[in-house]
Amino acid sequence: MKVGLLGHGVVGSGVRTIIDEGATWEVRELEVTAILVKDETEMTDPRTTLNADDIINDPEIQVVAECMGGLEPAHTYAKRALQAGKHVVTSNKKMLATFCGDLFDTARENGVTIHYEASCGGGIPWMASLDRTRRVDDIVSFRGIFNGTTNYILERMFHENRDFADMLKEAQKLGYAEQDPTDDIDGYDVRYKVALSCAKAFDAIVDAEKILTYGIRNITAQDLQFCRDSGYACKLMGKGEWHTDYISAMVIPVFLHADDVFANIPLNFNAIESNSKTLGSAAFVGQGAGSLPTAHAVVQNVIDIWKDQDSEINPKTRVPIDNQFHQGIYYIRTVKDALLASITDQRVGDHAILTKKISVLEAENAIRTLADQDLFIAEVAE
Amino acid sequence: MKVGLLGHGVVGSGVRTIIDEGATWEVRELEVTAILVKDETEMTDPRTTLNADDIINDPEIQVVAECMGGLEPAHTYAKRALQAGKHVVTSNKKMLATFCGDLFDTARENGVTIHYEASCGGGIPWMASLDRTRRVDDIVSFRGIFNGTTNYILERMFHENRDFADMLKEAQKLGYAEQDPTDDIDGYDVRYKVALSCAKAFDAIVDAEKILTYGIRNITAQDLQFCRDSGYACKLMGKGEWHTDYISAMVIPVFLHADDVFANIPLNFNAIESNSKTLGSAAFVGQGAGSLPTAHAVVQNVIDIWKDQDSEINPKTRVPIDNQFHQGIYYIRTVKDALLASITDQRVGDHAILTKKISVLEAENAIRTLADQDLFIAEVAE
Repeated sequence: MKVGLLGHGVVGSGVRTIIDEGATWEVRELEVTAILVKDETEMTDPRTTLNADDIINDPEIQVVAECMGGLEPAHTYAKRALQAGKHVVTSNKKMLATFCGDLFDTARENGVTIHYEASCGGGIPWMASLDRTRRVDDIVSFRGIFNGTTNYILERMFHENRDFADMLKEAQKLGYAEQDPTDDIDGYDVRYKVALSCAKAFDAIVDAEKILTYGIRNITAQDLQFCRDSGYACKLMGKGEWHTDYISAMVIPVFLHADDVFANIPLNFNAIESNSKTLGSAAFVGQGAGSLPTAHAVVQNVIDIWKDQDSEINPKTRVPIDNQFHQGIYYIRTVKDALLASITDQRVGDHAILTKKISVLEAENAIRTLADQDLFIAEVAE
Repeated sequence: MKVGLLGHGVVGSGVRTIIDEGATWEVRELEVTAILVKDETEMTDPRTTLNADDIINDPEIQVVAECMGGLEPAHTYAKRALQAGKHVVTSNKKMLATFCGDLFDTARENGVTIHYEASCGGGIPWMASLDRTRRVDDIVSFRGIFNGTTNYILERMFHENRDFADMLKEAQKLGYAEQDPTDDIDGYDVRYKVALSCAKAFDAIVDAEKILTYGIRNITAQDLQFCRDSGYACKLMGKGEWHTDYISAMVIPVFLHADDVFANIPLNFNAIESNSKTLGSAAFVGQGAGSLPTAHAVVQNVIDIWKDQDSEINPKTRVPIDNQFHQGIYYIRTVKDALLASITDQRVGDHAILTKKISVLEAENAIRTLADQDLFIAEVAE
């Protein structure tokens, strides 16, 4: 089966390498015949082209693997490939989460499918496991450490009593964090992954912007000291819960009990767990990024298409996000905590509060009125 | 597709319940039409029978799910079902590991397959993940905490400084350990799972009795105190490594670094990890037993057969187990440690030694000559 590659960076070159090397008989059934590159300096292979039409209009190419990153032109190319009757595999979580309604509709109208294993958790077979579990069970909920960068920062702050700004700089120096770290540290990267996990777990198209999202930008050594002294570990978690008429979904730092499996996920690992009726909880742990693991996930999806083992035939429906019934206890650090008296259960030293058990939306409404740019909020496991 | 059940205990009744309830369209394609039970008190359903021939000779039954446990008559029934042209799904690790050469051959001669997801890790999709990974990568090695009972005992001994005998009694009281705990605490249960993981990961039929097997029967609070004081955690691990001409495979307590993901697997959980070239390490964590998770795995295999998504077509070859090149540092506690001078690197207090880095077979040969019934050995992570 002939495959066209859009993009030849970290992931795209990994996909080319795996398919060219053909380690298994399944992979040897695949062939990369065209590769879109950015400029002439990247034209190191006879298959490279600067013109996306060479891929989109090639009738022999059945699958387009989009590994460009960014919103445009990745979105336009993916859409045109679907319209041309080609299956699309993408590792681009931001693009797919942003345009999923449009792209899933386009795929369906054209009798093709869009696959996105590589969009979450690098090489962790998260999407494939959801597909498999769903053959027997409805998925009730999922939760995960979807972002290795923030896990790296939190783990080192926690164990070495370091400040956020220092650790971010080190993560950038080591290549674990981008120069513009916003998507990671403010939780947007996890938000995209939660949106796509809702698509796979619940056949739901959700508005990613409605996923309540708190990051770790404001976390301090003092917050983590409370966390440690109270027997917790701190992880940035993405969560989704199915409620038939709506989905509860959020991104939030969580103070987990030390004996929770997720409390002990080291450094730049990812870990994701699904819950369903008969299987119960099943968790997957692995390095969440890297050229070859992510490329491996792209190639797996190409093989899914080649084998016609295709779960992406389920119609997807638009389901609203609604967090009003998600209740929890929240740790909130703000200099304006006196204004939170109505939701406060107890004070933490002179710097923070623990709320009563309240709706996360009640917490959100209370802190929004404070307009404190340095505020930090985390959910506390009960 | 019509399914016959052999056995209606914890797992078998779970399989019947999941298929009868038919939560998904895939499950609704399946139907349990006959159930072999042990005696008349179990004949609570019109489909029950006391005669295995009612299942094995029924031409309409395409799949037989063996959930009886024990070696016989489970082995004979499974073999006769294969000879009658029926696919077999089994949750019976001891039976399949013991007779795998015979049963895989019989399946192949009769153009059918034998599936065993439920034999390892309860509901953890370990076998399915190996199948999927192998579409792109050769598996290089695997390691795992395959036994929840011993993990429960070790975790509580470690954190509560308790004695082995006390903790075993508590595990038995709670139903986590059998009244005859030999299979669990002497490592035989893990040995069977390692043998079957070799079958799936490497297409290899191995002689389970050649898998070097050490258990935790002799572990003491003193051993765990050294472990804790030195920054380790102790887990009973099963391991397998592919070396083309031979497989290295063993069951052994391991002192793991505290930051190893596997060091922090709580109580009665299982965790298993594969390593392969492009995916790297991928780990799966879940409750390793229980009626519904194990039954879920059986039903998944039935759906694999129904969907003809069948990896079990690969021919399997007999591959020898050889551990002579597996090197490590070993903690050995024995009153006869003076006799281990030639392999000793340093003493641990007055009760144990740490070896130089040696072949595990050299360690095995040295301790075998001691004939110390109370000896405890563990591998120490480097």
